[in-house]
Amino acid sequence: MDVNEKALKLHEEWNGKINTVAKAPVKSREDLSIAYTPGVAEPCKVIAKDKEAAYKYTIKANTVAVVSDGSAVLGLGNIGPYAAMPVMEGKAVLFKEFGGVNAFPICLDTQDTEEIIKAVTQIAPAFGGINLEDISAPRCFEIEERLKATLDIPVFHDDQHGTAIVVLAGIINSLKIIKKEKESCKIVISGAGSAGVAIAKLLLRYGFKNILLCDRKGIISKSSENLNSVKKEMAEVTNPNNETGSLADGLKGADIFIGVSAPGIVTKEMAASMNKDAIIFALSNPVPEIMPDAAKEAGARIIGTGRSDFPNQINNVVAFPGIFKGALEGRARQITEEMKLAAAEAIAALVPEEELSETNIMPEAFNPKVAEEVANAVKRLIK
Amino acid sequence: MDVNEKALKLHEEWNGKINTVAKAPVKSREDLSIAYTPGVAEPCKVIAKDKEAAYKYTIKANTVAVVSDGSAVLGLGNIGPYAAMPVMEGKAVLFKEFGGVNAFPICLDTQDTEEIIKAVTQIAPAFGGINLEDISAPRCFEIEERLKATLDIPVFHDDQHGTAIVVLAGIINSLKIIKKEKESCKIVISGAGSAGVAIAKLLLRYGFKNILLCDRKGIISKSSENLNSVKKEMAEVTNPNNETGSLADGLKGADIFIGVSAPGIVTKEMAASMNKDAIIFALSNPVPEIMPDAAKEAGARIIGTGRSDFPNQINNVVAFPGIFKGALEGRARQITEEMKLAAAEAIAALVPEEELSETNIMPEAFNPKVAEEVANAVKRLIK
Repeated sequence: MDVNEKALKLHEEWNGKINTVAKAPVKSREDLSIAYTPGVAEPCKVIAKDKEAAYKYTIKANTVAVVSDGSAVLGLGNIGPYAAMPVMEGKAVLFKEFGGVNAFPICLDTQDTEEIIKAVTQIAPAFGGINLEDISAPRCFEIEERLKATLDIPVFHDDQHGTAIVVLAGIINSLKIIKKEKESCKIVISGAGSAGVAIAKLLLRYGFKNILLCDRKGIISKSSENLNSVKKEMAEVTNPNNETGSLADGLKGADIFIGVSAPGIVTKEMAASMNKDAIIFALSNPVPEIMPDAAKEAGARIIGTGRSDFPNQINNVVAFPGIFKGALEGRARQITEEMKLAAAEAIAALVPEEELSETNIMPEAFNPKVAEEVANAVKRLIK
Repeated sequence: MDVNEKALKLHEEWNGKINTVAKAPVKSREDLSIAYTPGVAEPCKVIAKDKEAAYKYTIKANTVAVVSDGSAVLGLGNIGPYAAMPVMEGKAVLFKEFGGVNAFPICLDTQDTEEIIKAVTQIAPAFGGINLEDISAPRCFEIEERLKATLDIPVFHDDQHGTAIVVLAGIINSLKIIKKEKESCKIVISGAGSAGVAIAKLLLRYGFKNILLCDRKGIISKSSENLNSVKKEMAEVTNPNNETGSLADGLKGADIFIGVSAPGIVTKEMAASMNKDAIIFALSNPVPEIMPDAAKEAGARIIGTGRSDFPNQINNVVAFPGIFKGALEGRARQITEEMKLAAAEAIAALVPEEELSETNIMPEAFNPKVAEEVANAVKRLIK
């Protein structure tokens, strides 16, 4: 049985990948009178006077909503909220198992930006944080920004920021090996959706200067036509030399390639046209922009993918559980840009210098220290 | 330490009364590839083709949303969604512990009828049923009706129907003892909110003919003024002799009193004015409409309250867990009036004839057979 058959069979056996379980016992009348009426009225009264007490007496302290509208699920596209559920349940499992954070899937039966913002705002009381997931660009940018502006709990679109953080962590460690300076690196990002845009922004903030962002039509520049507002904004802050042309044109002489786009779009020739000691993160999943062996043959020195069956898996699971763990424990109101940078550095630092190599730039996802260190890095920055 | 102090202390220790836990293991890379990417895409694809498959592969099969807007919480009133959380978490605990049903609290930060209907409709994909809770009348009636009309999963306002079902169960058993016929009984209900209205409706459907519904102003009749639309509707179907006057007037010669209103509003004199072998369910909680000892002294034969420290506790917990268990297992699209009657009869039948007595009309809440029998009664009626 291959992994797909096995997954389908096990999903049927599980019949849902999470359970809700009681922390409060209700085995006796006395139990009932404490966990439910009349005793339950006491915490209610305290919270009615002071909303902050919700963190003391309810699941808000340690529970995240995993919210999607099913509009951009994995590589499957717009499959809707019902079909998105297995992914959101899986995410809830990862939150719990990797970060110790309770999480519940909220798949919304609407793809209207205003309705999504309203629904998430309205369900917020139960939750200490909102993890947005698999919402298509460019709507995801507005949804996240608006929710961040109105809610007093952290809102984090993992496809954007989780991906950006782990990519930055991988690059930080790659540059330690290759010994290039960030200021002089040319980076080409393929894919200008939620992940590509967020990666470009975080890398700029980290200090990279020369980033080309490419969409299906090629390099995004100030002279590109028909850009949506987000791409227009990116044209202003990336591509300082106003290069134009195709992805292949952009890759010539580049030091770093980051693919969050489509299978097989980078040829061996394109990879070979990059600078010496090239770093290639081909994150399209399950089929990367270029297969690792081809990238290697083309001369790339460090190669990462989204897959677990090659070295250097660039996987969000080393980021989001720890980020929310830290944000919830420290009761952060927002996950700031500084926290994202600190998380990336903490992830990078989890690979000890003496173990760093071309095929070992990322920490082991199953190392329990990962979420702890990431959480600590986030918590240190909470005011 | 009294129960209230203890409850507050324990709620702080629990810091939320439910956890979400993983059913799928993620201890190895292989686990991850099955519970998450790439394997998770398989159930997604099946559900994308056939929405019904959500019941096979996701938590929808066995998960209920406990939805409130915090507008009518216990006896505390309109304390809002944050302060309502301990109650909704408690309810989620009861669903799990008594019915084996997963449940998650959704406390909505809006009290607008249209917005509540929209939000519940939008979050529905994850859930196999919606339990509405502590939403004030008369909005609760419209919210429930509209959601029942649009959603293809059961919607059940427990304050209405759970209460009506357990009251009917208690009356069925009381009449077995007292040997009066339902057709000849005069029933007075004090309280014309969600519970009172639902009780009146279910008792009518069961076959009672002469029911007086009283609100703060007294008996509701066709000549009452300023009735809201729901009370107007009730004036048409209750009070066949068009009686007018106060609650005290109504009680004269009544066989059954059901209080879902306010502490202490029934005096000993009022109770004494009832018919021989009177049944008094004084369910205002924690302080009943009349205390059991006073009702006894006034001549009542069977007395029930909402409290666990007196005999005959009339408690929803013997109803809702089994009702949703049955509805989910049988994949009911609605919880019908017939199912409610069947549930009440199943609850009544759980007290064996030989154990029935004036102080033992309700089954023991902790008897695991309760949810099972109620679930079976519901399932039998699913087409």
